[in-house]
Amino acid sequence: MILLENYLWVGFLGAAAALLFAWLQCRKVMRFEEGTELMRRIAFFIRTGANAYLRRQYLTVAKFFAVMVVVFAVLAALGLVSPFVPFAFVTGGTWSALAGFVGMRIATSSNARTANAAHESLNRGLSVAFSSGAVMGFTVVGLGLLDITIWLCILHYGFAADYATIAQTMVMFGIGASSMALFARVGGGIFTKAADVGADLVGKVEAGIPEDDPRNPAVIADNVGDNVGDVAGMGADLYESYVGSILATFSLGATAYGAAGQGWNAIFLPLALAICGILCSIVGTFFIRTGENASQLSLLRTLRTGTYIAAALSAVVAAPLTWVLLGNMGVYVAILCGLIAGCAIGYFTEYYTSDTYKPTKELADSTETGAATTIIGGLSLGMRSTCAPILIISAAVLVSYVAAGGMSVGFERGLYGIGIAAVGMLSTLGITLATDAYGPVADNAGGIAEMSGLGEEVRQRTDALDSLGNTTAATGKGFAIGSAALTALALLVSYVDVVKAKGAVLDLSLTNPPVLIGLFIGAMLTFLFAARTMTAVQRAAQSIVLEVRRQFKEIAGLMEGKADPDYTSCVDLCTRGALKEMVAPSVMAVIVPIITGLVLGASGVVGMLGGVTVTGFVVAVFMSNAGGAWDNAKKYIESGVHGGKGSDCHKAAVIGDTVGDPFKDTSGPSLNILIKLVSTVSIVFSGLIVAFHIL
Amino acid sequence: MILLENYLWVGFLGAAAALLFAWLQCRKVMRFEEGTELMRRIAFFIRTGANAYLRRQYLTVAKFFAVMVVVFAVLAALGLVSPFVPFAFVTGGTWSALAGFVGMRIATSSNARTANAAHESLNRGLSVAFSSGAVMGFTVVGLGLLDITIWLCILHYGFAADYATIAQTMVMFGIGASSMALFARVGGGIFTKAADVGADLVGKVEAGIPEDDPRNPAVIADNVGDNVGDVAGMGADLYESYVGSILATFSLGATAYGAAGQGWNAIFLPLALAICGILCSIVGTFFIRTGENASQLSLLRTLRTGTYIAAALSAVVAAPLTWVLLGNMGVYVAILCGLIAGCAIGYFTEYYTSDTYKPTKELADSTETGAATTIIGGLSLGMRSTCAPILIISAAVLVSYVAAGGMSVGFERGLYGIGIAAVGMLSTLGITLATDAYGPVADNAGGIAEMSGLGEEVRQRTDALDSLGNTTAATGKGFAIGSAALTALALLVSYVDVVKAKGAVLDLSLTNPPVLIGLFIGAMLTFLFAARTMTAVQRAAQSIVLEVRRQFKEIAGLMEGKADPDYTSCVDLCTRGALKEMVAPSVMAVIVPIITGLVLGASGVVGMLGGVTVTGFVVAVFMSNAGGAWDNAKKYIESGVHGGKGSDCHKAAVIGDTVGDPFKDTSGPSLNILIKLVSTVSIVFSGLIVAFHIL
Repeated sequence: MILLENYLWVGFLGAAAALLFAWLQCRKVMRFEEGTELMRRIAFFIRTGANAYLRRQYLTVAKFFAVMVVVFAVLAALGLVSPFVPFAFVTGGTWSALAGFVGMRIATSSNARTANAAHESLNRGLSVAFSSGAVMGFTVVGLGLLDITIWLCILHYGFAADYATIAQTMVMFGIGASSMALFARVGGGIFTKAADVGADLVGKVEAGIPEDDPRNPAVIADNVGDNVGDVAGMGADLYESYVGSILATFSLGATAYGAAGQGWNAIFLPLALAICGILCSIVGTFFIRTGENASQLSLLRTLRTGTYIAAALSAVVAAPLTWVLLGNMGVYVAILCGLIAGCAIGYFTEYYTSDTYKPTKELADSTETGAATTIIGGLSLGMRSTCAPILIISAAVLVSYVAAGGMSVGFERGLYGIGIAAVGMLSTLGITLATDAYGPVADNAGGIAEMSGLGEEVRQRTDALDSLGNTTAATGKGFAIGSAALTALALLVSYVDVVKAKGAVLDLSLTNPPVLIGLFIGAMLTFLFAARTMTAVQRAAQSIVLEVRRQFKEIAGLMEGKADPDYTSCVDLCTRGALKEMVAPSVMAVIVPIITGLVLGASGVVGMLGGVTVTGFVVAVFMSNAGGAWDNAKKYIESGVHGGKGSDCHKAAVIGDTVGDPFKDTSGPSLNILIKLVSTVSIVFSGLIVAFHIL
Repeated sequence: MILLENYLWVGFLGAAAALLFAWLQCRKVMRFEEGTELMRRIAFFIRTGANAYLRRQYLTVAKFFAVMVVVFAVLAALGLVSPFVPFAFVTGGTWSALAGFVGMRIATSSNARTANAAHESLNRGLSVAFSSGAVMGFTVVGLGLLDITIWLCILHYGFAADYATIAQTMVMFGIGASSMALFARVGGGIFTKAADVGADLVGKVEAGIPEDDPRNPAVIADNVGDNVGDVAGMGADLYESYVGSILATFSLGATAYGAAGQGWNAIFLPLALAICGILCSIVGTFFIRTGENASQLSLLRTLRTGTYIAAALSAVVAAPLTWVLLGNMGVYVAILCGLIAGCAIGYFTEYYTSDTYKPTKELADSTETGAATTIIGGLSLGMRSTCAPILIISAAVLVSYVAAGGMSVGFERGLYGIGIAAVGMLSTLGITLATDAYGPVADNAGGIAEMSGLGEEVRQRTDALDSLGNTTAATGKGFAIGSAALTALALLVSYVDVVKAKGAVLDLSLTNPPVLIGLFIGAMLTFLFAARTMTAVQRAAQSIVLEVRRQFKEIAGLMEGKADPDYTSCVDLCTRGALKEMVAPSVMAVIVPIITGLVLGASGVVGMLGGVTVTGFVVAVFMSNAGGAWDNAKKYIESGVHGGKGSDCHKAAVIGDTVGDPFKDTSGPSLNILIKLVSTVSIVFSGLIVAFHIL
């Protein structure tokens, strides 16, 4: 009989494949030319700004990490957390940051190259942008798998820990990645939207100059923002999702299959799924290519083909894998559920946010009666759009639970099914993320094309790529939010296991007041967090507005194109604003679960986790979709309907889009991370809570 | 020993006192003059419109009620619901409608009288308006208590039912009142905001004529709306809250004190509290009077004095009452908790929505950078403002639970404490509602003063009364939402009791997938409902916009004041719009819990109730406060800051206010009712669910 625990090193093979593929894609991108002198200069500006921001962001986060490491060290010394936590916290955080950094580096190296390649042909443009996205996608999964495998090997080979200890310990390791991800998403999100909103409010609305006009002092900051928010932030975010879902499933697997002597098998399955997913994703990328003069629809089709092929291959390979490892095809059904749910949420996200469908078209109609109805329409659309994802996730939870044996074999089996569904959903993250991360690169390329006067044709091509990016981003967001909900549920259950193992007596019934109050506190945390991040964007944007207005007034000849604006002052303002504003929401996510636990006890914490997961999920979908729909309604009007650019309808749509900016790129996606960070924080501090609590 | 069950008729005395006082106040109002011929004519228009709307609304609702009665009759014949339910459903619905109708009648008879009295002096104006509010307030509590006492007597004296059967049966009786309240709130809310938004969008924003200008064809509809939405809707709503809290507490009391032989005592206490509350409220009204030239602050102080005196008296009287009836002063602490929590939520509502405090001032600042930042600022303010009410309600739940013996004597005792806290909070509803309901009357009076050209001084006085009404409305909303949360929690627990008594086996643990899915469904229902009601307002408003534009264009001499607009067409459009749009959200509230129960079973229903209570509460507070703050930020700017009326800041503020209209007067307050209706529907259909469910 094969002893699975002797084959933990196969994780290294998967990680190596991913990282090698990323490196090859990187080399491919770097072989392209950056274009004219002006393009190089603009790209240099953007790269420098993004580098400077990330350096300062990491420095700020490092201080937080230093404090936390000391806290963990003290707690570990007191026996309240596992002694590995401080180390795991640092590695998780560092690697998550690294994933974001690599993504940002390649994105800022590809933007001018994409613009230049699009100058030659649409296919070449797509090729550069997509390869750049692939570097990011495969780096994220490669580093994630590497991190997990290293710790598995350390704990198993180094400390001879059994599967149960490994699973219970490693479920805490997500906290480093989650913390880093939250900082990166919130900080990056504030930066990018402060720059975007600030640039739009003064440039487009007040001065009436087009988007990405080089006379706008905030235009470089806006482009830097795409890289630090949509690329580095998203990289850290999905690194965390990926690692988090696997770790939560380890923990559930150890509980569910331990008694049957299949503990290692249950841990090995998510690992094996991740490896297969990487290989299938690599195969999928080879199907992404387009002919010249391809329509937007055919571009979308080629990207989808790649993703679907990867998903289908994964589904095929997962069947024998599950059979061999667990002999239980119910678990396979759960994996399929995850894959299908991810795609289905992606589809509905697209339905609600793309201007090819009715909802966004109706939203564009509502601009006819002004800004107020545009806002009401968007808010209402966002709220309605929560329906489909909730039903999908509910169905996925129910089917995975039942299929994996939750009703027949035992409760824990079903919960493992929910965890493995999340892993299944994220197994092809390499390629999903690639199609997602290429968006901001295309967006940047469009900016560079505009600023360096590459001509209408190139701009049209980059616009086609960019607009497509909005759609694929919707699919990406579907996977991110769907997996976040499943992972958070899995973590909630892991929390219960962990505190029970520590001797806590729980009454998790919904009629128990601490649980009910916990639900309320969870909902409150969601709303406070969303409010705080929105206000942060607004405050940072306001400082940009004032600065841009100042430059328009004080720099003589700026509007006539005779003088250069001071780009760096805007970049600097965004950086300072983002760093200042990102701290409070992140600290909130750490403090609230601890205080809740100390006051209400572990049952109250479970209530809070339920509350934050449900409310966080709904609000995240609401905000992301409302924001996406406003954005695309505006683009739809710009395409010529309802009077086109400059009409009253367009002005109303711009107001909608500006409200939607922090919705879809700051608050919404950060909530995904919040719901998982809160769970991990609760798990890590469970020893403290069980030892000291009032109720 | 006194047998309490022989004294159930004291409820009639309380009801008689309330109704008699209401009648005296009504006579007092009617002794005032309606003013000039023009004022009479305008008042007549408003009255006719409101009457016509209510008649048609009740006809539409009657159809729904007819269907439901048949359904209940069938279910009763099958033994799936209590045979009393069809009758109780009809009485609850009818009386709730009656409460709203009486309030509307007196309000439409007082508006011109208030304007005319304000012409003489501010004190007389306040006197008429407040008396009109008092008619409504005391009619609501009087009818509520009468309904409850009649059924208590029928069940006890007529059918010789014991306290447990009575309590279990009567908890279902709220469904009629809840259904009616939801229709009234949603329909009235859609009517009033469609008219308001429509009138503002074309009148104020496009044509640039002032509010309440008689040239605006939607102006009468707007004034009708205040009466059918803010008066009739609110009356039905609070009738339901009042009755619902008492019925839920009956049910919890029977379970908690039955074993100790104190079942009747536990039922008698909420009844006695209600009676005392009525008497204390009547005393409180005698303290409400103002001198001439009173500042707004002193006006507010006199209203507050009345309310606080009533609350303090209630608190004093409740102590011996609780001691005599239950010999348990912990329950008295719970009652105090309710009273204090109501006032505290009211205070924070005021803090977040009144322009005397920082949040609304900051919101007014954010108009400096345009409509988008105004919207973001308001949304963020609304989200932040959920924090205090949640903490207050959490504290109230926890303290009432513990004080009433939840940790020491037994679980059920604590839950009875939560129920009695809600009853305590609403015991002085007579006077709270009076201070709330006088607002729309003052608003209408201002409209009539404007339209009949009564002069600047009168308008200033009615404006002072109106603006004060906004603040007292905030306090009223605090009580409404706070009691809704407590009552919903009490109903959730009653539901569990009811289904357990029917033999259902429940697993209410948060780790049970049906419960988790239920939570998601509950959150979904909240968001769908909010979206649907917002869209309804928008759609109805859009038809008003088109109609007003048409009249401005087609009626020659309208803008010059030489021709009259066609007011009735706007009233008619609002009526049709409201009636058409109110059905779907209301039906949703009935269907979703039944489907959830049939699919997920009773445990899933409990999860859904938890989800809808928590999310509904948070979203209701968010929407009400955001809307209130936008409204007052606009009024603050109109007072002269940030450039005053007509400035760019004012335009941005008007957009915020327009978005806020459906927030604060349609979706927000309807959610209060939704969370209770869903609970009552679940309780009534529990027999069906227990007999037929999939999971």
